Amino acid sequence: MKHAVEREWGTDLIKSWNVHRWIDLPQRAGAKIARLVGAKSSEVIVADSTSVNLFKMLAAALKMRPGRRVILSEPGNFPTDLYVAQGLIEMFGGQHELKLVPGEKIIGAIDDSVAVVSLTHVNYKSGRIHDMAAVTAKAHASGALMLWDLAHSAGALPVDLNAANADLAVGCGYKYLNGGPGAPAFLFVAERHQAAIRPPLAGWMGHAHPFTFDVGYEPAAGIARNLCGTPPVLSMSALDAALDVMLEADMNALRGKSLALGDLFLSLVEQRCAAHGFTNGSAARHERGSQVGLLHPEGYAIMQALIARGVIGDFRAPDMLRFGFAPLYNRYTEVWDAVEALKSVMDARAWDTPKFKTRAAVT
Amino acid sequence: MKHAVEREWGTDLIKSWNVHRWIDLPQRAGAKIARLVGAKSSEVIVADSTSVNLFKMLAAALKMRPGRRVILSEPGNFPTDLYVAQGLIEMFGGQHELKLVPGEKIIGAIDDSVAVVSLTHVNYKSGRIHDMAAVTAKAHASGALMLWDLAHSAGALPVDLNAANADLAVGCGYKYLNGGPGAPAFLFVAERHQAAIRPPLAGWMGHAHPFTFDVGYEPAAGIARNLCGTPPVLSMSALDAALDVMLEADMNALRGKSLALGDLFLSLVEQRCAAHGFTNGSAARHERGSQVGLLHPEGYAIMQALIARGVIGDFRAPDMLRFGFAPLYNRYTEVWDAVEALKSVMDARAWDTPKFKTRAAVT
Repeated sequence: MKHAVEREWGTDLIKSWNVHRWIDLPQRAGAKIARLVGAKSSEVIVADSTSVNLFKMLAAALKMRPGRRVILSEPGNFPTDLYVAQGLIEMFGGQHELKLVPGEKIIGAIDDSVAVVSLTHVNYKSGRIHDMAAVTAKAHASGALMLWDLAHSAGALPVDLNAANADLAVGCGYKYLNGGPGAPAFLFVAERHQAAIRPPLAGWMGHAHPFTFDVGYEPAAGIARNLCGTPPVLSMSALDAALDVMLEADMNALRGKSLALGDLFLSLVEQRCAAHGFTNGSAARHERGSQVGLLHPEGYAIMQALIARGVIGDFRAPDMLRFGFAPLYNRYTEVWDAVEALKSVMDARAWDTPKFKTRAAVT
Repeated sequence: MKHAVEREWGTDLIKSWNVHRWIDLPQRAGAKIARLVGAKSSEVIVADSTSVNLFKMLAAALKMRPGRRVILSEPGNFPTDLYVAQGLIEMFGGQHELKLVPGEKIIGAIDDSVAVVSLTHVNYKSGRIHDMAAVTAKAHASGALMLWDLAHSAGALPVDLNAANADLAVGCGYKYLNGGPGAPAFLFVAERHQAAIRPPLAGWMGHAHPFTFDVGYEPAAGIARNLCGTPPVLSMSALDAALDVMLEADMNALRGKSLALGDLFLSLVEQRCAAHGFTNGSAARHERGSQVGLLHPEGYAIMQALIARGVIGDFRAPDMLRFGFAPLYNRYTEVWDAVEALKSVMDARAWDTPKFKTRAAVT
């Protein structure tokens, strides 16, 4: 960031679009993410937010399946995934439907009314992993497209979009990719679909010739047409640098460490906090993302007390304490310290004060 | 940026959403821009890119004028403004039309087929200022909505959206607001229209209660519903800090200096470069933004040679050298130096080499 701010912006000014290749930063960062999600470098690009990219991909999917009216998802999908679908359907005049069925019944609910199945690969709350290959195969057998949201899987576990024959995907840069607060997001379009996409957000950065300043829109070849406006270079530079670090690691080794960190956490909680009424709310190990969950009726206050001790997890209503492990940098000793902090919060009933029990607007 | 990266992100981590109020950064930065464009603090918000915001505002306008089929603009509007309209129309199935008439004939072309008039306040190429009040009044007299793109006016000259009774506006953060490369953009919705907008990009940050994780989308009250995904905090922090500096200045004084810088440039070019075949391609002084233009058949190569000497303007085909003045920090001595650099390029025919005459992909 120091280089991006002081050298690129501060010294080289607008020349940096060429000199420091800001102009193809979306492609360069996208190619790095491609290596983490089983895609070709020409199939991933960094742009906008996950929500905006969901809109682009859902809109494209509905246009590619004109006779079909259903977007299929699950009620426990991350809310913005559902909201964006609702907004799109309203915009299209209501002739489509967002159908929600529980995750374990998704495969059985895919029929020939479905235009696109839209799921988050690792559920944000339960941490459960969908079987990407099986769901995608069923979608294709019914003639539907498959859109995966990789927000909680890219950088957290091995993902192989092309092995699963996925059509479309999106994901965020600020969870396991470590790109910084609100880091730009990414999107994936399988090569076979790229030419068919007419971008609904037809901004100049997705134009075939952005700097000829033509009056008429002509989409760029390939993945670049899914760009829209000028990218936020500073935020994207942080993500790009974070990706370089991540690519030095082996994703299978990261997955092994991620599971080991979660295992250690759960067994330490069992040993050290047995008397405190926690229930294991994690997914089964073989379908668990890089997070575990503990259930407790006072979960909200307990998480606030933990955060005050520097152990930062999330509370998800009604009773879930969610602990995510960033395997790239979280250490086993940190897991030990986290459980000791939890034990001390519980032993001293430190959570049992109005300061921690009163819910803030943002958690 | 040092504070945002090292203290907020680096030390306070995710707690900064509350501790450093990342969560309302879009509103806080928007309220600062509101003071520069004649809007209430509750009418402006920072979000996404100009292109994405154009999409939101044009989509909202078409929904608010359901019986009308025309988006009216000018052929010389900034290309992304036209592309986004074209993409939106295609998405809506083609029942709308983007009608382009020359800027000086816009007022006469507004009739009751027009849903929204979409213009950039200061033309990016000619630097000519539209009469905001007059065009807006004519739009309203015909029952149309008025959308202003302030990319080349916010921070460059006094703008008074509410005095002109404007409906909708967008603008970028990286030109005269000095927010850094690809800085996030802003949008304005007049208070009287805010409740009528059903956001097409219905992301979680525009939800009434983003952190209750409801399944159903419910737009936030007021301007916040026009947010979509998680904002790029690092880029937005740079813009926010730049706005603090700008607000220390008086916009009328900045306008005076902006015009004086342009006057000085043009008269020095006349004095020092008289023999070199430049034509003044600037708008008339009273309707000139913070830029001037020189026309020359070798404009491309001349601009490349100038940039190599550290004087950075833009070339716009076929023959325009565009010089923008950032009145907040550009100095009169810099104008002198710029014209001397231009004179030396011309005297020595420094532009007349393949190095500068060969067009790069990006200019």
